[in-house]
Amino acid sequence: MSNAVVALGGNAILQAGEKATFSIQMGHLENTAKTLVSLLDDFNALIVTHGNGPQVGDILLQNEIAKEEIPPMPLDACVAESQGLIGFMLQTAIMNELRRSRKKADMMCCLTLVEIDANPVPPSKPIGPYYDKEMAEMLREQKGWEMRLDPGRGGYRRLVPSPRPRSIIGLAALQTLMAEHRSSPLILIVGGGGGVPVVRDGDTYLGREAVVDKDLTSSLLACSLGADTLIMLTDIGAVYRDYGKVSEQPIRTIGPAELETLLSQGQFPPGSMGPKVQAAISFVRGCGKRALITDAPTLPDALLGKAGTTVVRERSRTE
Amino acid sequence: MSNAVVALGGNAILQAGEKATFSIQMGHLENTAKTLVSLLDDFNALIVTHGNGPQVGDILLQNEIAKEEIPPMPLDACVAESQGLIGFMLQTAIMNELRRSRKKADMMCCLTLVEIDANPVPPSKPIGPYYDKEMAEMLREQKGWEMRLDPGRGGYRRLVPSPRPRSIIGLAALQTLMAEHRSSPLILIVGGGGGVPVVRDGDTYLGREAVVDKDLTSSLLACSLGADTLIMLTDIGAVYRDYGKVSEQPIRTIGPAELETLLSQGQFPPGSMGPKVQAAISFVRGCGKRALITDAPTLPDALLGKAGTTVVRERSRTE
Repeated sequence: MSNAVVALGGNAILQAGEKATFSIQMGHLENTAKTLVSLLDDFNALIVTHGNGPQVGDILLQNEIAKEEIPPMPLDACVAESQGLIGFMLQTAIMNELRRSRKKADMMCCLTLVEIDANPVPPSKPIGPYYDKEMAEMLREQKGWEMRLDPGRGGYRRLVPSPRPRSIIGLAALQTLMAEHRSSPLILIVGGGGGVPVVRDGDTYLGREAVVDKDLTSSLLACSLGADTLIMLTDIGAVYRDYGKVSEQPIRTIGPAELETLLSQGQFPPGSMGPKVQAAISFVRGCGKRALITDAPTLPDALLGKAGTTVVRERSRTE
Repeated sequence: MSNAVVALGGNAILQAGEKATFSIQMGHLENTAKTLVSLLDDFNALIVTHGNGPQVGDILLQNEIAKEEIPPMPLDACVAESQGLIGFMLQTAIMNELRRSRKKADMMCCLTLVEIDANPVPPSKPIGPYYDKEMAEMLREQKGWEMRLDPGRGGYRRLVPSPRPRSIIGLAALQTLMAEHRSSPLILIVGGGGGVPVVRDGDTYLGREAVVDKDLTSSLLACSLGADTLIMLTDIGAVYRDYGKVSEQPIRTIGPAELETLLSQGQFPPGSMGPKVQAAISFVRGCGKRALITDAPTLPDALLGKAGTTVVRERSRTE
């Protein structure tokens, strides 16, 4: 038996346009839990990561609206709150699916910090509430925030850096769990929202107002924990070549070098398939195992190599 | 070397009357981290628990103020958010103190759910914002909340049940860490705010709008994980007999039976020393080890039996 890192897409918790109520999110997570628990037939440990975009956006907006009464928390602390919130909902959903399906697994949800490079990268990722032009100007001046107009929504949003994760803090304890936990299969929820970004400045660790891409954190986790398979779930069954064109074709099996060539040709946009493709390349190249990109319904066939996109080392493709 | 559960008092994070800003809380947690890291001279694993009263109160108020824009989360989800927030701040503070003191320890912060009895207990614990009389009446009718007037503050607060914790969910993974993690001393942050209360109804686990006393959860954790010592830190150096009277006297060493007699005499009020005394009794009686109740400055002497209050089995007092 082997281990997999499973990176849940945003739609595992909330669909685009939905209000993030507790019950709507629990409803989606029930389905997500079915997918995860079914993976216990193939793997004896799952490390589950998840995004947090809508949830941390809501927490930021709550902080903003209530700021006269309650001191607002920095973004890094809000990411930590969202890990708590989503971790609770996801753990409950998995526990219930385990009971319904008469399967046994031990669970733990770890609040996860990730170290990022202390040299800041330019802000690129829009987060939190939308502001009008006047308010955006004020925030630019008062807080030094970079603001970007989202023409589709007609409002301005704060841009924050999206640095690469360098290391998982607390990795040693996770490694002990992966190596030594034998009483039951293990499901760990780790690295939610990409992890809370911290930098090391001399002897001091400091949270940083940034968001780390959860697929890159998932790839780093998969390498660091010696996972066999990195599964990235999204809302489409496979990665496509020439997506949206007449010539579009799903990619069934590909090596990291060929995938990198397609990436450098601009085939995979930064806001959607790009980070998943990058994460797959770095995992397969760095650790020599298999990465899958697919959606939940296609996953069973993808695990058999009959659907989805599988990234494997070039050599093993001809074996 | 041995293991301790350390239950932090509220003043480890925030002093009474202070606004819960990020930097004020980090300031207190720096001192708290010094206390915790110094315990690595005596113990090779620490399980750290903490309260969350002011923090979950602030999150509830943010939810309330922003409710027209953002769907408010139930209390159990807010407790989970506060575990994320405090766990992040505390973990950062401990990491920094480890580096400053040139000590090494591996850390993990676990989002913790605790199972409580499905039979509800009557609401007794005031939480969250203060409301005026009219609003309190409306909440009573609309949401079925029990509301209680706090004469000191001149406002009404919601009362929620404070059930006893029955079991720690995810205990098996914690046990693996305690038994198998050998590369460095281990510091686990667990059971924040007493844990997120869940009940089991048939095959379904459900969060419950309640708060679990963190000292009772700490006692349960200490028993379940086979800790040698349960340390409950508070804002007073020892437990007193006849506290506040002319005859008041600190209790240095006491057995659970004698302590229970004092408890039943009403010596320890439910809102302050009561839960700590109960937690100490149940830990020492159930697991036969030592419980300490003291404040951070007195802790070094308390560990040597020279100060603070030590609860031990009757037999060992005469050994």
